[in-house]
Amino acid sequence: MTDLPDQLLSGYRNFMQGRYAAETDRYRELARGGQAPATMVVACCDSRSAPEVIFDAGPGELFVLRNVANLVPPYAPDGEFHSTSAALEFAVQSLKVKNIVVMGHGRCGGIRAALAPGSGPASPGDFIGKWMSLLAPSADAVSGNTLLTEGERQTALERISIRYSIANLRTFPYIKALEDEGQLTLSGAWFDISTGELWVMDRETGDFRRPEID
Amino acid sequence: MTDLPDQLLSGYRNFMQGRYAAETDRYRELARGGQAPATMVVACCDSRSAPEVIFDAGPGELFVLRNVANLVPPYAPDGEFHSTSAALEFAVQSLKVKNIVVMGHGRCGGIRAALAPGSGPASPGDFIGKWMSLLAPSADAVSGNTLLTEGERQTALERISIRYSIANLRTFPYIKALEDEGQLTLSGAWFDISTGELWVMDRETGDFRRPEID
Amino acid sequence: MTDLPDQLLSGYRNFMQGRYAAETDRYRELARGGQAPATMVVACCDSRSAPEVIFDAGPGELFVLRNVANLVPPYAPDGEFHSTSAALEFAVQSLKVKNIVVMGHGRCGGIRAALAPGSGPASPGDFIGKWMSLLAPSADAVSGNTLLTEGERQTALERISIRYSIANLRTFPYIKALEDEGQLTLSGAWFDISTGELWVMDRETGDFRRPEID
Amino acid sequence: MTDLPDQLLSGYRNFMQGRYAAETDRYRELARGGQAPATMVVACCDSRSAPEVIFDAGPGELFVLRNVANLVPPYAPDGEFHSTSAALEFAVQSLKVKNIVVMGHGRCGGIRAALAPGSGPASPGDFIGKWMSLLAPSADAVSGNTLLTEGERQTALERISIRYSIANLRTFPYIKALEDEGQLTLSGAWFDISTGELWVMDRETGDFRRPEID
Repeated sequence: MTDLPDQLLSGYRNFMQGRYAAETDRYRELARGGQAPATMVVACCDSRSAPEVIFDAGPGELFVLRNVANLVPPYAPDGEFHSTSAALEFAVQSLKVKNIVVMGHGRCGGIRAALAPGSGPASPGDFIGKWMSLLAPSADAVSGNTLLTEGERQTALERISIRYSIANLRTFPYIKALEDEGQLTLSGAWFDISTGELWVMDRETGDFRRPEID
Repeated sequence: MTDLPDQLLSGYRNFMQGRYAAETDRYRELARGGQAPATMVVACCDSRSAPEVIFDAGPGELFVLRNVANLVPPYAPDGEFHSTSAALEFAVQSLKVKNIVVMGHGRCGGIRAALAPGSGPASPGDFIGKWMSLLAPSADAVSGNTLLTEGERQTALERISIRYSIANLRTFPYIKALEDEGQLTLSGAWFDISTGELWVMDRETGDFRRPEID
Repeated sequence: MTDLPDQLLSGYRNFMQGRYAAETDRYRELARGGQAPATMVVACCDSRSAPEVIFDAGPGELFVLRNVANLVPPYAPDGEFHSTSAALEFAVQSLKVKNIVVMGHGRCGGIRAALAPGSGPASPGDFIGKWMSLLAPSADAVSGNTLLTEGERQTALERISIRYSIANLRTFPYIKALEDEGQLTLSGAWFDISTGELWVMDRETGDFRRPEID
Repeated sequence: MTDLPDQLLSGYRNFMQGRYAAETDRYRELARGGQAPATMVVACCDSRSAPEVIFDAGPGELFVLRNVANLVPPYAPDGEFHSTSAALEFAVQSLKVKNIVVMGHGRCGGIRAALAPGSGPASPGDFIGKWMSLLAPSADAVSGNTLLTEGERQTALERISIRYSIANLRTFPYIKALEDEGQLTLSGAWFDISTGELWVMDRETGDFRRPEID
């Protein structure tokens, strides 16, 4: 009996007997030497799209920010609390990551909420509504296009939001500077939960394509 | 050649041939039916403490928010953007998770920054400084206590911050209500990167102990 | 020396020694008994998307209409010349096909012209401009959406045009009636020239998906 | 299970494992670089006379218009929808094809309908009747000639219609000009479904002869 859900305790037992047992040296080294991940991933909280799983990443490899719909708000040095900006600052300034990957995914509940504002459960704070309103202009443009199917509108906004977040990354002066100097790459990716497909954004055109992996 | 770091592409290939191949049906079912995770985890961005790894979780099991130092700010329905509150709202109101676990970890860079404000790299926005100032009163009290070693101060603030976040969770009216009705549990946990140990917070006392897992 | 391009004559020689030699009986039988294809395909003139090739079809299997951008205009019994409507009438009324498949494809020049009217070579008749103006309302709605990349706008209109043509098929009274009686199916498909992928339209939602073929 | 006839899905599987697998590079190059076919073929929708099969053509080689009885109506810049003229314009003006081949065939149902107007299934629109009325003067002259057998009348009109379409091609000012400049050739051909014979039209006399192919 612990004050932790049984399933998590059981999973933790597997971790200790499996992965930790196999990678003990790696964990000890990472504890001693500190983390030095080459890549930061901005991903969604969704339970079906964990970056470490999709990229088969070991301990110490990915610095991972996860929020609803993997959004990066624009740079706003206004003295307020910005959890996303704080994580970016830590990754880029302190850890000096070489890559930032914004990874979205299909059937995203946050994107669905953005396309149908007000349709979710009512909440006094309406934090989801406010958070997703970052995408409101795009969502309005897409949701009015009835020539697209509901599924197409959803995918379109999921991909637009990745391009939007990458554009916002470039509003952070030091990110822009490092990218211009060739010391930092910005990538976009979109994960299809159903098929497992990963679509990668072309940096030139913004189009998403499936890389050849065989 | 893709616009994605090579290591991630290579890892994705492993995922497709390994985990996705083995769990194709599960992914398809999760795509069709939507996610229904029982647990939300609030964790740190740190590359050494991915919840899915530590809890050996499969797709669809954990809804995961990750920010620097796994902080939950207090409830603030002020119409501003709050990514953490948005994720909580989505998990509790839409997905109706049954558990929220705040998981901290040892050697946390965010906590270190809170204990030594101004020691990190300067940044015009100073988003990290602002973000960690949520812990400022606690950090001040701990950092002045020279009876504790540096390591003890670090661990102390890591655990204080978990209790602080759990206390803030209870400032969200619907979280408080659901916990009181026995429909939602709030847990704290602390992961030791070096030894792999997981310390679980006692809900009564706030103490952290290692559960028996054998 | 014949009055036929050399390449075609050379290809015809291959046909006689290869496919015709192997299928002589089938050709004779089809000459004697007449054609009785089960399926009509409405496809584009594009040199990269021949239905017989993509569907590996033998003689007698597919009745194929090909025009620019595989468009079906709406039913218009106005006494004018309508080559598309004439082909539909022949396929459905005389040949009694059981399926009609509208097959579009990626990188379609007609669709590109519809998205950028007036950008093609000037022509006194401007038959392309007029023909593609069937899609003008959709093209206007898509081309103004700068949140989508050029490639995404192109793909979007390619798929919208397939749904449009299928909707127009249903304006032909006997096609509608036969479909309602379950004697005729209408399908949509989109061929990706680069990858060879065939995306099939879901009849319920209008979404395009890749069928499993292994 | 897809919304595509089983036979087509099965054929598509063959294509992917066969022709596409063998010609992947060609398809990719054609996608990247665009199509540049040297030849346009105007052929009939008939399921037994696919140009790519008869001319053993690879991807990118033939730009193919197919309508009932492979007819080219006369040039008519009247602002109406003309699918055949639109395809010609696209092939000649945009793709700058070097050859246009009008290919008819034996036992053509459209020609049969032209020789016996009103014998087909009644249809309110009667699009076939209207479409084939392009050949009405010729058809009347031939059908009244009882010195010819029924088979001879059919073949005669099939070949007359090829000459008629080629004459109409020359009513398009830019086609006439390009032919006069020696930059575009116009050819006629007639395919015998039963024997596989291809008869090529002599440009001087209009006669059809079988080329030597051995």
